[in-house]
Amino acid sequence: MRLYVTLASPWVRRVRVTILELGIEDRFEFVQTKWPHSWGTQTVAMPADFTAATPVMRIPALVTDTVTLTDSHAICDYLNAEFGAHRLLAREGKARWQALSTMALANSVLEAQIMRRAETLRSDKERSDDFIAKMRDRTFRCFAALEKHLPDFGGTFDLAQITTAVACSYDDWRYGRGWRSTAPKLAAWYDSVAARPSMKATEPAETPQR
Amino acid sequence: MRLYVTLASPWVRRVRVTILELGIEDRFEFVQTKWPHSWGTQTVAMPADFTAATPVMRIPALVTDTVTLTDSHAICDYLNAEFGAHRLLAREGKARWQALSTMALANSVLEAQIMRRAETLRSDKERSDDFIAKMRDRTFRCFAALEKHLPDFGGTFDLAQITTAVACSYDDWRYGRGWRSTAPKLAAWYDSVAARPSMKATEPAETPQR
Repeated sequence: MRLYVTLASPWVRRVRVTILELGIEDRFEFVQTKWPHSWGTQTVAMPADFTAATPVMRIPALVTDTVTLTDSHAICDYLNAEFGAHRLLAREGKARWQALSTMALANSVLEAQIMRRAETLRSDKERSDDFIAKMRDRTFRCFAALEKHLPDFGGTFDLAQITTAVACSYDDWRYGRGWRSTAPKLAAWYDSVAARPSMKATEPAETPQR
Repeated sequence: MRLYVTLASPWVRRVRVTILELGIEDRFEFVQTKWPHSWGTQTVAMPADFTAATPVMRIPALVTDTVTLTDSHAICDYLNAEFGAHRLLAREGKARWQALSTMALANSVLEAQIMRRAETLRSDKERSDDFIAKMRDRTFRCFAALEKHLPDFGGTFDLAQITTAVACSYDDWRYGRGWRSTAPKLAAWYDSVAARPSMKATEPAETPQR
């Protein structure tokens, strides 16, 4: 399987941590992508294999012999079922819905973080400080709500926890530690899982420019 | 169950069509939301029940006795399993991955359509014509790719087809029929499903202002 990645993307990291937690990294060819900062507002010219793989022109994208999946929701669902025997997300029932409830909040944080990043990359002329504040406020509200889900977190570092941890890490890295005062217990939980090999091996770094 | 909705949101419509196709509309209290146009860049003050239900402050949001789900991915997955016996999306296996592949593309269209809408609502000073073009180009690429999935569409108007149909309809309504020349066979397919009662009952209209 071919997986298109960058170190900076929390959507990619969510998939990479899943792969490491399942112990299936040997099955993948990881293709590093490079992006100019103009991606924030422009369609970027990309290598032919990438544009052929995903018309969305976004990462992560997974290409297997039989199917192409172009977002992390579909990729995580596929990996969990096909290679994890549903160990990281229950196949159905209450456990699944509780995990999806947490995951929907954590995914909203990732989305807000990336939209804020894209806004930051705009020219002064087209940048909206209101929009940046809106995304930060949403992030903080969701972190506070995620903290209330903590008592339901089980013993497995599952897809809901992976996505939450990636969201915490991204804010630390990109926007500083301000979120921690809105969700101090969540911050303490994050610090405890940040030491996992799957998290250490995927720490964020700037995307190579081209 | 309480579902927060508007007529304009394709994310909401995807859930409403799913509910109608499953014939379970009697189980829901539909709460109509109103939004000022400033939602594009600002955090909007909303009624207390809404902000209590969803810290994301976005629709759709589903509140049941046991779980709150704050995005359409989670809601559709839940409804399909709990009330549809997986009739609109296979529980696992090749049929599920093929549907998720189509759905990831269609969801990318919905996301691009809404981001373009938010951009259109910005003040002249903060609007990026490049960004609008980027979203339109992504939409058109994904429609062309979805057309290639048509031969795999089965006899059931399932979640992949529902999401695709909602995407086609939204572009017709909001941005005109320009997409149709990029995917004429998809347009013909859409015209054939647009007559379904679930689609007719959920045709888009402007969100009430407040």
